[in-house]
Amino acid sequence: MTSYAAPVRDIRFVLGELLEHDSLSLPGFDETGPDVVDAVLDEAARLANEVWAPLNRIGDVQGCRLEGDAVATPEGFADAYRAFAEGGWNGIGVPESLGGHGLPEVIASAVQEMWHGANMALGLCPTLTACAIEALALHGNESQQTLFLPRLIDGTWTGTMNLTEPQAGSDLSRVRTLAIPEESHYRLKGQKIFITWGEHDAAENIIHLVLARMPGAEAGNRGISLFLVPKYLVNDDGTLGVRNDIVCASLEHKMGIHGSPTCTLNFGENEGAIGYLVGEPGRGLNHMFTMMNSARHKVGIQGIGVAERATQQAFTYAADRQQGHAPKTRGGESCAISDHLDVRRMLLSMRSRTDAMRALALYCAAQMDVAHHGDDDAIRQAAQATVDVLIPIVKGFSTDQAVEIASLGIQVHGGMGYIEETGAAQLLRDARIAPIYEGTNGIQALDLAGRKLQRDGGEAMTVLIDAVDATATELQADDALYDQGKALAAAAADLRHATTRLVEQGADPERGEDAVQAYATPYLSLAGHVLCAWQMGRAALKAQVAIQAGHTGTFYHDKLASADFALRHWLPVGRAQRIIIDAGKETLLEYQANRAFS
Amino acid sequence: MTSYAAPVRDIRFVLGELLEHDSLSLPGFDETGPDVVDAVLDEAARLANEVWAPLNRIGDVQGCRLEGDAVATPEGFADAYRAFAEGGWNGIGVPESLGGHGLPEVIASAVQEMWHGANMALGLCPTLTACAIEALALHGNESQQTLFLPRLIDGTWTGTMNLTEPQAGSDLSRVRTLAIPEESHYRLKGQKIFITWGEHDAAENIIHLVLARMPGAEAGNRGISLFLVPKYLVNDDGTLGVRNDIVCASLEHKMGIHGSPTCTLNFGENEGAIGYLVGEPGRGLNHMFTMMNSARHKVGIQGIGVAERATQQAFTYAADRQQGHAPKTRGGESCAISDHLDVRRMLLSMRSRTDAMRALALYCAAQMDVAHHGDDDAIRQAAQATVDVLIPIVKGFSTDQAVEIASLGIQVHGGMGYIEETGAAQLLRDARIAPIYEGTNGIQALDLAGRKLQRDGGEAMTVLIDAVDATATELQADDALYDQGKALAAAAADLRHATTRLVEQGADPERGEDAVQAYATPYLSLAGHVLCAWQMGRAALKAQVAIQAGHTGTFYHDKLASADFALRHWLPVGRAQRIIIDAGKETLLEYQANRAFS
Repeated sequence: MTSYAAPVRDIRFVLGELLEHDSLSLPGFDETGPDVVDAVLDEAARLANEVWAPLNRIGDVQGCRLEGDAVATPEGFADAYRAFAEGGWNGIGVPESLGGHGLPEVIASAVQEMWHGANMALGLCPTLTACAIEALALHGNESQQTLFLPRLIDGTWTGTMNLTEPQAGSDLSRVRTLAIPEESHYRLKGQKIFITWGEHDAAENIIHLVLARMPGAEAGNRGISLFLVPKYLVNDDGTLGVRNDIVCASLEHKMGIHGSPTCTLNFGENEGAIGYLVGEPGRGLNHMFTMMNSARHKVGIQGIGVAERATQQAFTYAADRQQGHAPKTRGGESCAISDHLDVRRMLLSMRSRTDAMRALALYCAAQMDVAHHGDDDAIRQAAQATVDVLIPIVKGFSTDQAVEIASLGIQVHGGMGYIEETGAAQLLRDARIAPIYEGTNGIQALDLAGRKLQRDGGEAMTVLIDAVDATATELQADDALYDQGKALAAAAADLRHATTRLVEQGADPERGEDAVQAYATPYLSLAGHVLCAWQMGRAALKAQVAIQAGHTGTFYHDKLASADFALRHWLPVGRAQRIIIDAGKETLLEYQANRAFS
Repeated sequence: MTSYAAPVRDIRFVLGELLEHDSLSLPGFDETGPDVVDAVLDEAARLANEVWAPLNRIGDVQGCRLEGDAVATPEGFADAYRAFAEGGWNGIGVPESLGGHGLPEVIASAVQEMWHGANMALGLCPTLTACAIEALALHGNESQQTLFLPRLIDGTWTGTMNLTEPQAGSDLSRVRTLAIPEESHYRLKGQKIFITWGEHDAAENIIHLVLARMPGAEAGNRGISLFLVPKYLVNDDGTLGVRNDIVCASLEHKMGIHGSPTCTLNFGENEGAIGYLVGEPGRGLNHMFTMMNSARHKVGIQGIGVAERATQQAFTYAADRQQGHAPKTRGGESCAISDHLDVRRMLLSMRSRTDAMRALALYCAAQMDVAHHGDDDAIRQAAQATVDVLIPIVKGFSTDQAVEIASLGIQVHGGMGYIEETGAAQLLRDARIAPIYEGTNGIQALDLAGRKLQRDGGEAMTVLIDAVDATATELQADDALYDQGKALAAAAADLRHATTRLVEQGADPERGEDAVQAYATPYLSLAGHVLCAWQMGRAALKAQVAIQAGHTGTFYHDKLASADFALRHWLPVGRAQRIIIDAGKETLLEYQANRAFS
């Protein structure tokens, strides 16, 4: 019931047929052939299916335990993590110059989906480590890189990001943790909350990256610096020294991802935790934001992984469960529930949306590859502009949809879906965190509608909308796909209209911020629907070509159905967001929402 | 953080200002004055707020325990139930001729919302008892009514409904439990699952109503009969006799409503459980269906109760939590998150939808009163036709929306929403069952689009759509509400169009069943949005009148904002369902969804 098969065939379709360019053809990836990619996908799938996936429910049931100041992770988690580290998976996307495998981001992202589909709670451990690796690679000095990167990349140590404090969540300017200079290091004192894999038993050391203020630093964002604070101090020769002054004070009781320890960390209860400045003083938030794109992309991928698992589980149950009868005109025989059109609607909705989100997230990853490795500056900058616009959509939209898809997965199971043993409920409980962390989806929407759209007047988004229109035209040229093309063209027009409106109103010096705030979430939803549907329009074109070329089997027919559902049965809900934006901001502006109930 | 205040003011607005007629003016309610209603609402609110609500989280954390064959409910639950029973709340809607208080359904429903808002898990105990009372009142013979009804109504005993078996969920024709005749009673043998409050420690006896087959009964629905099977046999003088042959074999581990014991009951492990035929042999399913309307209405009310609690909790948190700053043009001061328009959007969306669903559910309840007590046959029949159409909407739409509203409540809390101590996560976990039980929402949609729409060619629905149009016209006559009226008129046209399409295609002998199945869920969603928005259009008109009459304070202004949001910021999503219905059924028909993943 709770098995998982990494969707290698679907991933290959996106990588090999759907993407407009092949990241492997970019400078720097010349030595990697498609056979390597195939082997990587198969090997990752094996580990995900056979080792990680069976632990998913165990992690949920057992959770993590705080024993003294040590955290015991669920049975099997530490071994599964070590199998992952020994497989070299931590370094898959890390440049070879730093000791990684240097595979393109698009491959790394495809593989990440498998870990999260198999076991999201465990997948968070290497996800956080990857963020720490990136932060050090970008901002660490040479000795920090030499001392810490190799062990993070080989997975002997893991990494964490310490941002949140009780009074500082979405608003990090309120961070209070202190970093007091002492000799060549700092002493940190303060409390961090919601620290994912902040303490655990799966690695020899934990490297915390911590936002804190030096004494006398200015208030607000520009007084915040970034520090590296290891659980065990590390000697110059790389061996471990004494335990640092960091205590895991408690674990959170969360709705889901029970296998992932979410820690309250007290820094400096005694003499102060020894930490090292990373990058420039006062630039801590900027340093964090330089890796925000990839961190947020990774959260979007988490949503897609869980959505895929929920979809597989719903299909499996629906094909097995016998209830009701086929319509009398088709024999009236007793049948599996997957034969009922209303259940098929749920299944196809789950499949279609998951396909669409994967395609968009990997499109974004491929653009990240171009942004880093493209031939010239202009190409790289254009790709980066696309990435900047897509990231909040991949994060915000994929995770919102993942929650809906997991909830629909429960519904397909009927009463069994509400019983924890079935595993469907866990997927909703696990997925529910993804719209919240790494910037709430409200923050994502503000990032898109505010910063990203306003700074270039909607130019990068317009490039995407033009591409959507081109696909719509191509679809309309094919009689069999004409209706889908028409639906996509209408949706592209909605997005273009909403973009213009948001850019115009956002520029108003008096009410611009209000407009951005009021329209941000409907706009992100509209853009997410249109761009995901665009990818499915492209999928339909590719599937059509393959079928016409004589490919048999169900794969391409399933993709056509998935695309048709996305364009004609799902996209209309997104288009409604245009009407909501047109409804204006006055109601929200005037509404006094500061009510408390007693 | 997890407090609850029964929304007495909002309920009074619906009862006193919004409903088109006053149930108290109907024959049979002549002796009940509005002062009685006020006292009932206040007294129920007191018990809900002070006794039931504080136990909500305790119930979630402790859950129920099976000890031997006895079930221990969470601390305080048994006492809270007894306080409820002693307050006479079990009999609130039961006719005085049977020993109840005989209040109108609309009052009983308003009070039900409070129990479920305060503590849904506990609220299920009297909900099931109410169903058992109704079944016996309708179909029990005189001696059954004399022996069992008084104790069910006074709450000394509770009732259950035993329908589901492992192989018989949505498809009850597969029921296998046997009822073997013996003297004047039957011996039942079989297993029932998912029995809500099937065994517990809060009452002296439990009266099970059980679907089973007599030996040799025909296969399918018409072989099923209804039986009354008490936990303790009852002597002719009403005293308790020996324990019946019923064992609670296990409790389910559910996603939520942990305080409600969901039991697997084994009937007749030994000599067979003694049961008594209720109503006619072979008519068990029909007898069940005669009370289906009120049972489904009650589940819709559960959704509304939880949505209200989630809304209150989100408002309270958002008014308290300080993060970020007001726009620079409004001073740039640090502020509560309820000052951010994107958070206001979430809050107003929760408030608006909850207001709308309550108004529609109580409108439906008022029609139930007319259907039972109206002046003449024609009036009663017309009201019953309206009720029949509304019931699947109140059940399906309110519970789907409740899940979304509870999920949005988590989002308003940010990271704290994912921590169980906050209580927001429990509301989503609790609410998630409501779209499943008492007929999945897919079944509700089929009931609406199939039986209800097809049997009268959409006539009863058209009466409602005409009423929506009338409200839209009235709104458009007021300059301040013109835009809202225009939005409602457009949505009414969508619903009219979809109704015609569904009736036309549903009548096709070849493909009629397919059309109903394919369009059912989008149609229910469209109808739910339009009818809920209709009620909010009426609320806007009433609020406008009150404001013009000089009413001060925020109440009516809040209602205007709530209505504006429903009509212009929420209704468009519902309207999209028309486009989805127009997209046709072919994709679903052709899609082969019988895939299983390994």
